Amino acid sequence: MADNSQPVPRGPPTGSLVFPGALRDRLEPLLAQALIDPVAHYQHLTLTFATSLDSSIALAPGTQTALSGGMTKGMTHYLRFKHDAIVVGVGTAVADDPGLNCRLRDAGGYGGKGLRGQPRPIVLDPKCRWQFSASSKVMDLAAQKKGKAPYIICTKEPPEDRRALLESLGGKFIILDPFSDDGKLPWKQILHALRREGLNRIMVEGGRTIINDLLEPQNHELVDSIIVTIAPVWLGQGGVVVSPPQRSDDNGQPIAAVRVSDSKWEIFGKDVVLFGKPT
Amino acid sequence: MADNSQPVPRGPPTGSLVFPGALRDRLEPLLAQALIDPVAHYQHLTLTFATSLDSSIALAPGTQTALSGGMTKGMTHYLRFKHDAIVVGVGTAVADDPGLNCRLRDAGGYGGKGLRGQPRPIVLDPKCRWQFSASSKVMDLAAQKKGKAPYIICTKEPPEDRRALLESLGGKFIILDPFSDDGKLPWKQILHALRREGLNRIMVEGGRTIINDLLEPQNHELVDSIIVTIAPVWLGQGGVVVSPPQRSDDNGQPIAAVRVSDSKWEIFGKDVVLFGKPT
Repeated sequence: MADNSQPVPRGPPTGSLVFPGALRDRLEPLLAQALIDPVAHYQHLTLTFATSLDSSIALAPGTQTALSGGMTKGMTHYLRFKHDAIVVGVGTAVADDPGLNCRLRDAGGYGGKGLRGQPRPIVLDPKCRWQFSASSKVMDLAAQKKGKAPYIICTKEPPEDRRALLESLGGKFIILDPFSDDGKLPWKQILHALRREGLNRIMVEGGRTIINDLLEPQNHELVDSIIVTIAPVWLGQGGVVVSPPQRSDDNGQPIAAVRVSDSKWEIFGKDVVLFGKPT
Repeated sequence: MADNSQPVPRGPPTGSLVFPGALRDRLEPLLAQALIDPVAHYQHLTLTFATSLDSSIALAPGTQTALSGGMTKGMTHYLRFKHDAIVVGVGTAVADDPGLNCRLRDAGGYGGKGLRGQPRPIVLDPKCRWQFSASSKVMDLAAQKKGKAPYIICTKEPPEDRRALLESLGGKFIILDPFSDDGKLPWKQILHALRREGLNRIMVEGGRTIINDLLEPQNHELVDSIIVTIAPVWLGQGGVVVSPPQRSDDNGQPIAAVRVSDSKWEIFGKDVVLFGKPT
């Protein structure tokens, strides 16, 4: 840990990350054209997350587990740089207190100008469950100009004190019509709302509920690309597992839930990363 | 499909597989020295299997699911060539009716001499549940000299008719002392029995019960290497999942069940393969 009581006149900003050029060169050809050469009128949804060999994203519900190595952590921040918005569910916001910013040295607040490359955090919180405060990491980063304040998507009027805090930092609540009774997120409605905000390159990071929901067949068409990091570890039974509902064929026989088309693997350090599109 | 009613005077033997030299060159450096340059007095256990992204080895219990692509199928047969014995549990024998032989063109029965490169199938069947017959695939292959007849490890006297059939093909039952009450397989006892048969290079292929058992902490030391193929598909909930029991630290907090040391990834076609050792 750096000693923050001493001034550090030179050197990289505290907490900054590096994603070396050699890795960028390997990553770029695997990314969708929409991310490399963005077109304003086209919305692109990237679903990305890291799992263990047994498809867990965390050891237990409500906990955060560091899974991926340094290189894939750098990759995640590079991907954040390439997207307009980072979407997480309220469970992730509560459990992880995530920063949802970009800590690469060319991003705003870490060496870059203004808020360059900082994505807009989006928290899906239909019932305004997330009791954030000024000390929540994403709010603190926004106050420090090291990230943007979140837009929180909900279906009811938020508490006034939280609204005031959020708006003072540049964020806001976006109130949609109540979600459907079956508990499924109306992705098209969410994406439409993001588009109205000028957010076209959307990266969905988690958690389990949201990932499994996007991997369901009726939502495949909304996911333009998946980027899944796999770490060489089995977390074991009881973890927070990504596994969508199984499908059946016309005879009622189980068939694979999701196949990945145009699949490509890339090895980054100790981890492997799958790029493709769900089909 | 080839038309079997027509004689085929030339060409590769029916059902043979190819594992090209270029892939062998990538695989060999990743294999344990014990497999490249076998030493008679040293027993080596390789645990190998293929999973989906959600760690399933099959869509449902009692079913066989083709997961891996052609290249990793060829790799599996190359690995069988490199081992003295292929171990499966009775569940796999019953569900899959597996051949458990090597179909590479340099293996006996597929172009090679005698039974060259054919591993000994080992079926762990404590209660003699496997009701095989002469038409079971592994028995049929043994009768055709395209593989060896299995050794079946059990804890009670087998039915006389099955014993006679098995022995007529060159296989046998190996009766061990009754397994422990907790249902765990006494791996040391099994490995000792295999060693008495001169079987040193042991490859364990499945199924779920056996894989999860070998991944438990008390059995790690017995596993010299793991080779796990991951296919770019989510089979979905309800599959046959590989995930060992979670562990806890001294404070009762969950920790990863199994880490992989000396991990290396290799991309074979559409699949990725992890090589390492459980720790």
